[in-house]
Amino acid sequence: MGQELVLYGYWRSSAAYRVRIALNLKGLPYESEAVHLVNQGGEQHLPDFQALNPQELVPCLIDNGQVFTQSMAIMEYLDETHPEPPLLPSDAAGRARVRALSQVIACDLHPLGNLRVLQYLTSQLGVDDATKGVWSRHWISLGLQAMESMLTGNVATGRFCHGDTPTMADACLVPQVYNAVRWKLPMDGYPTIQRIHDACQSLVAFQRAVPEAQADAPAPV
Amino acid sequence: MGQELVLYGYWRSSAAYRVRIALNLKGLPYESEAVHLVNQGGEQHLPDFQALNPQELVPCLIDNGQVFTQSMAIMEYLDETHPEPPLLPSDAAGRARVRALSQVIACDLHPLGNLRVLQYLTSQLGVDDATKGVWSRHWISLGLQAMESMLTGNVATGRFCHGDTPTMADACLVPQVYNAVRWKLPMDGYPTIQRIHDACQSLVAFQRAVPEAQADAPAPV
Repeated sequence: MGQELVLYGYWRSSAAYRVRIALNLKGLPYESEAVHLVNQGGEQHLPDFQALNPQELVPCLIDNGQVFTQSMAIMEYLDETHPEPPLLPSDAAGRARVRALSQVIACDLHPLGNLRVLQYLTSQLGVDDATKGVWSRHWISLGLQAMESMLTGNVATGRFCHGDTPTMADACLVPQVYNAVRWKLPMDGYPTIQRIHDACQSLVAFQRAVPEAQADAPAPV
Repeated sequence: MGQELVLYGYWRSSAAYRVRIALNLKGLPYESEAVHLVNQGGEQHLPDFQALNPQELVPCLIDNGQVFTQSMAIMEYLDETHPEPPLLPSDAAGRARVRALSQVIACDLHPLGNLRVLQYLTSQLGVDDATKGVWSRHWISLGLQAMESMLTGNVATGRFCHGDTPTMADACLVPQVYNAVRWKLPMDGYPTIQRIHDACQSLVAFQRAVPEAQADAPAPV
């Protein structure tokens, strides 16, 4: 039997990291294709990849030859085609909450710290590295503050973002915390996020998805 | 019978505009609450609104006292609670495509031109108005180019983004085109987007959702 699912990703991409978590939570085996993202000359801009995803962004999932893009759309697709264990609760209000928590990260927070945006800040606006750090920490802290309020102020929050089993919201949260730590944002202002993050990291599905565990990650020095 | 649905929005907010389209497509009556978004002193930062949405962003939908945030999560919620007419196709691959098209706009394009980001460019990075225009047009054109490729290169594209009835993707596309025109981006490079936009604008549901038709829009001069 051939490998049906192929994930085009990059070890450090938050969006690819989300999909790895979702695939692992579902127990779905997949083949990884690394797309080495770098400024201008990155593999995301090669014609072969551009043909798969005109946005020239990872992740991109191939399921039996069909191409799927956008991490949240991919996770919803996996949830519809492989319902167990679910990545969304069964009630409409709960599903809306999990989607909103995911979108706080995927729409309002993560895009502002994306590689291509940081690259634009440098090349077009002449922003130096220190100021890029301030920019990144500003948007990450704003998003995580909102997330922390939404989590602490709601009885639906459990061991994970919504109840006691991981959902799409956790698959978005953990890569964002990874990213926050990378930008040296102090995490002590977000106790609920930290607690949920730690609960996630105790699961093999999350452990196997970490950037450093990927084949295309650089060897530790 | 009291009004069940209350939409907190702002006439020119793209994200609120999306939800107005979705509500109109569903034929759902709703009450509008205007949240006047301005720099620093905007009503989105008032404690009463912050209690509804810790993100201090519109839109925010109240359904029988329950609060829902994030425009795409709200549209999915409306689609689950009021299935007819559907905002998503019935097959998993089609649903993934509509969600991905929506997310190209809602995740990768729109957040970069949001009020709070433009405000940061001015106040923290000293960017002038002309350069902010270049910034906005850069991200809008990049997103619309990807969208145009995804639409023209796919047989599932019909009179609308996906098939011959409007979906969530159209509800995201039309406000983004409005925004592009506001930033004076020439639209002639996007013939498929323009054609779909015009098809949408022929529908009353879209006409009634335009910013200038909202009660909080300034009177024409």
